[in-house]
Amino acid sequence: MSTFSSMHSPSYSHSFICSSSINEKKNQRFVFSSFPRFSVPANAKVFLQCQAKSHQNAVLMQDGYKLTSRPVDLADQHYGLELPCEPRTYTRSRPRKLKTLLAMLQEVQNQCKDDMWHLGNDQKHSFLSITVVGASGDLAKKKIFPALFALYYEGCLPKHFTVYGYARSKMTDAELRNMVSKTLTCRIDKRENCGEKMEEFLKRCFYHSGQYDSEENFAQLDKKLKEHEGGKVSNRLFYLSIPPNIFIDAVKCASSSASSGNGWTRVIVEKPFGRDSDSSAALTKALKQYLTEDQIFRIDHYLGKELVENLSVLRFSNLIFEPLWSRQYIRNVQLIFSEDFGTEGRGGYFDHYGIIRDIMQNHLLQILALFAMETPVSLDAEDIRNEKVKVLRSMRPLQLEDVVIGQYKSHSKGGVTYPAYTDDKTVPKDSLTPTFAAAALFIDNARWDGVPFLMKAGKALHNKRAEIRVQFRHVPGNLYNRNFGTDLDQATNELVIRVQPDEAIYLKINNKVPGLGMRLDCSNLNLHYAARYSKEIPDAYERLLLDAIEGERRLFIRSDELDAAWSLFTPVLAELEEKKIMPEYYPYGSRGPVGAHYLAARYNVRWGDLGLDQSA
Amino acid sequence: MSTFSSMHSPSYSHSFICSSSINEKKNQRFVFSSFPRFSVPANAKVFLQCQAKSHQNAVLMQDGYKLTSRPVDLADQHYGLELPCEPRTYTRSRPRKLKTLLAMLQEVQNQCKDDMWHLGNDQKHSFLSITVVGASGDLAKKKIFPALFALYYEGCLPKHFTVYGYARSKMTDAELRNMVSKTLTCRIDKRENCGEKMEEFLKRCFYHSGQYDSEENFAQLDKKLKEHEGGKVSNRLFYLSIPPNIFIDAVKCASSSASSGNGWTRVIVEKPFGRDSDSSAALTKALKQYLTEDQIFRIDHYLGKELVENLSVLRFSNLIFEPLWSRQYIRNVQLIFSEDFGTEGRGGYFDHYGIIRDIMQNHLLQILALFAMETPVSLDAEDIRNEKVKVLRSMRPLQLEDVVIGQYKSHSKGGVTYPAYTDDKTVPKDSLTPTFAAAALFIDNARWDGVPFLMKAGKALHNKRAEIRVQFRHVPGNLYNRNFGTDLDQATNELVIRVQPDEAIYLKINNKVPGLGMRLDCSNLNLHYAARYSKEIPDAYERLLLDAIEGERRLFIRSDELDAAWSLFTPVLAELEEKKIMPEYYPYGSRGPVGAHYLAARYNVRWGDLGLDQSA
Repeated sequence: MSTFSSMHSPSYSHSFICSSSINEKKNQRFVFSSFPRFSVPANAKVFLQCQAKSHQNAVLMQDGYKLTSRPVDLADQHYGLELPCEPRTYTRSRPRKLKTLLAMLQEVQNQCKDDMWHLGNDQKHSFLSITVVGASGDLAKKKIFPALFALYYEGCLPKHFTVYGYARSKMTDAELRNMVSKTLTCRIDKRENCGEKMEEFLKRCFYHSGQYDSEENFAQLDKKLKEHEGGKVSNRLFYLSIPPNIFIDAVKCASSSASSGNGWTRVIVEKPFGRDSDSSAALTKALKQYLTEDQIFRIDHYLGKELVENLSVLRFSNLIFEPLWSRQYIRNVQLIFSEDFGTEGRGGYFDHYGIIRDIMQNHLLQILALFAMETPVSLDAEDIRNEKVKVLRSMRPLQLEDVVIGQYKSHSKGGVTYPAYTDDKTVPKDSLTPTFAAAALFIDNARWDGVPFLMKAGKALHNKRAEIRVQFRHVPGNLYNRNFGTDLDQATNELVIRVQPDEAIYLKINNKVPGLGMRLDCSNLNLHYAARYSKEIPDAYERLLLDAIEGERRLFIRSDELDAAWSLFTPVLAELEEKKIMPEYYPYGSRGPVGAHYLAARYNVRWGDLGLDQSA
Repeated sequence: MSTFSSMHSPSYSHSFICSSSINEKKNQRFVFSSFPRFSVPANAKVFLQCQAKSHQNAVLMQDGYKLTSRPVDLADQHYGLELPCEPRTYTRSRPRKLKTLLAMLQEVQNQCKDDMWHLGNDQKHSFLSITVVGASGDLAKKKIFPALFALYYEGCLPKHFTVYGYARSKMTDAELRNMVSKTLTCRIDKRENCGEKMEEFLKRCFYHSGQYDSEENFAQLDKKLKEHEGGKVSNRLFYLSIPPNIFIDAVKCASSSASSGNGWTRVIVEKPFGRDSDSSAALTKALKQYLTEDQIFRIDHYLGKELVENLSVLRFSNLIFEPLWSRQYIRNVQLIFSEDFGTEGRGGYFDHYGIIRDIMQNHLLQILALFAMETPVSLDAEDIRNEKVKVLRSMRPLQLEDVVIGQYKSHSKGGVTYPAYTDDKTVPKDSLTPTFAAAALFIDNARWDGVPFLMKAGKALHNKRAEIRVQFRHVPGNLYNRNFGTDLDQATNELVIRVQPDEAIYLKINNKVPGLGMRLDCSNLNLHYAARYSKEIPDAYERLLLDAIEGERRLFIRSDELDAAWSLFTPVLAELEEKKIMPEYYPYGSRGPVGAHYLAARYNVRWGDLGLDQSA
């Protein structure tokens, strides 16, 4: 195993280590000409390593483009600059980009005269085997294979890798490739060589048919993987895209019969992680029979969303938010998720879980934890996850009176009849499963005491939206109160982080309407991603797969986080089911049950997404 | 005099007082049909008066347009809603708008069931005589007459008014109208009836030729004014657009021979208000021989700029700025003014004053005072001016070592030679008058102790710009420091209020660049006026003239403010002149003397306008 792929350092397909001898040469041409010596592969991921601690952790390229490092924790007081594989990929096939990279290396040398830089090549012998267990499923087709291709296309996968599809159905490699190829797309902003890249990617895709509980079948897979790996250091990633009841069997078989002998073995699992505290604990216990905690990557794909990732950046790198981020200035926080479609004939799984388990207990609660946590010691995964657990453990378990549940009913509009939830043939006619829920949660700590955190999630609503809304308090002694209407709520500042669709951050402020007289209105200071960044935003799965490959656990859920999350929702879920609480019915395509407004009103909150907000 | 034109209440061309009998009628049609009884004149300025104090201080019109009041201080516990004359004018010639107004009256009645509303007609007998003294001057032609026309066009002038031009040269009314007509323009967003309106306006314009120091000539003017006023209550506004050496004579003559006998008389004076503390005090003393303080309207047209007006709104109506507005979070404040042209043959006046007196001591210092003042008791003029005086008096007089002065020199670019300041034929060859200055000022109070307020003003620079830049402190213990470059200043938040051109407010925040990896950059949360508000922003003179007519003193400078402002700059101005300090020469069209950077560096500041700011 390479010295750079230790547990604490991301693994890079290539590292370039500037040597001190190169450092002495000032001629840019020198670096350029010397480069081929290191036989840069196509799609190399580049890493600069510095032997001495440098105050330089960013480099400016000749075209003004700024590369910044991510913290890299290497042994022996070595410090690294990772050159992000996006938005540029440095490959031999792109000499211009390569030239820019080299100019940058030169820049680094000029800036760090006292440091020793090494230029080298690393990890060329390691191999990555990715197995998608449940390859014929929907998620695999729609998300996992496309994300893997995107990573390949961006040059983020190691040089040597294969992708194995594993499922029960019989299929040839060609059939799998055919299936996979239908969902591959190229980045809108980078169509270069796309067909060619797809071909190359598909050549690395293979299929192995097997039962999920058969050690023998996994052993056969192991044999095939070994053939590809050809004796190299091999790292193995299993993505379990299978129903929860066969999780454990598959983990057991993969672990016992298809683990890597000389590299790491990691398993990505998707929700549901149980139905409540007990079943979740049982699942964790079972997983841990076969895997250690650091081999388990519990995915919550919301954590991979661009603006969720950005939440910590916003909070911790901007002074202006620092004094505001507490009960002193924040009146309430709203976490809103809505889908504009129902279960549409696929409610079988959903009916067993319901919206609270499907969206709130994981996606929205994870966002809440990131939003509300205390400042972590560092950005390392364990430090962040420690803070998330702390905030979850400071929360009051949700009370029945703080929940409103709903279920969509049939609705006709414009001659079209939209079905009720219970019209779904896979759903029992008398199902009480909530397709909508609103909840008020509280964090009993010094920072957030008394601030309502309102969640709302629903299917078959009037729009598709995921957002965080932070409503600030009223201005004390507001000189301009007379210029506002009677509803002061409309005049308070609000920070909105729109996670999807159409990513944006905006801050509602009061402003004088230009013109004579003194008329105030609410305007947005806004950052609209599509307008600011031309680059396509990667899918959450890309980020999470890459992180799993690199061993970055920041965005994955640790066992104790999961426990804490379940303990908040388990009592109320049990009570809802025991008492057979009737959901409030709302028409398909509507704004949801009005009960959500009464819940909000009890805590003096007004839902920001249904207000007069011009951007809503 | 009307009961509504007392010193403390704005005067309205028309007030509509809802009677209790109307209040009892719920039928919207009733109000509509009853309206003609009140004979609304064209261009009425509408005012709603409520006899009982109402919690309603804003009304929503049927089309969602929100009208808000400005505080109106009436006698007898009467409270008013002023319906702003923009962006709609309610006139008989616009039946649709009128209908909307009536719908609104109905709305008010519905909302304030317990209040008594009167609908009536007031002040039809008052008359406004505006005299522009120095009518043939540049300012009068370019700013004053166009602003008066714009106010007329917007329906902000009373029904009965005349505009008199007064100057020494001989001119007929027709010649004046011809001169004035050349500079009148219609609002870009409202071209309706423009030609017609111009005609009507010009018919109200007259000319009187006279000496500025002749009581006889002013008495002749008085006679003419009286003829127009025809016995009505007459209010008289004199705009002194004349050189400072004849201020006092003109004020004396106007006051003694052309004051209103039965209404108010007000005088607007423009800078310069002296050259230093002594000459300013002498001027004030002389003015006060003939006028009371509340008759004197010292104009600083920067205070009429839209975004300067908005500064207080931003500060005091948005909670998010409240905790940030002090030394605890603000690292420095920059007030920047630049022009991209020189004196261009008109340096005679300027050379006597220099950039510090011309821009810093008034425009920039006024903005600083508004920015830094404590929260006033109310938005009333005296409360705001009290706070401005307090903050000015808390400031240290500017020290010589905290000033950098510059003067532009000739520069050739692209075959064009731009002149030096001293190439201006109206300027002495050996002039040391600064055309550029940078200064560091400090406010020794609890809020701002140690925060540098840097000013920079110059002519013949590379751009035309007026802006306020607030640089916030570095994030303490920033988790993301490693993701930034070495220059942390570039990673700190900055609030920019661009006063001109292209009005905008933006907040520089750090943000994650979308994509895999963790790369941060600086993005703007922004509010770009041109994009948000389709309406044309009124010229500063319109606002100020209207305020003077309405007796609103908030944006005019009080004597003690002026004293405080001069006392900050007088010692250093004297020292610069006594010691004949050489200015640092900078090329015409350049970014100004580099000395400004060294001054900033001494206080650990980096000028924000010359940085990497994408919006700069």
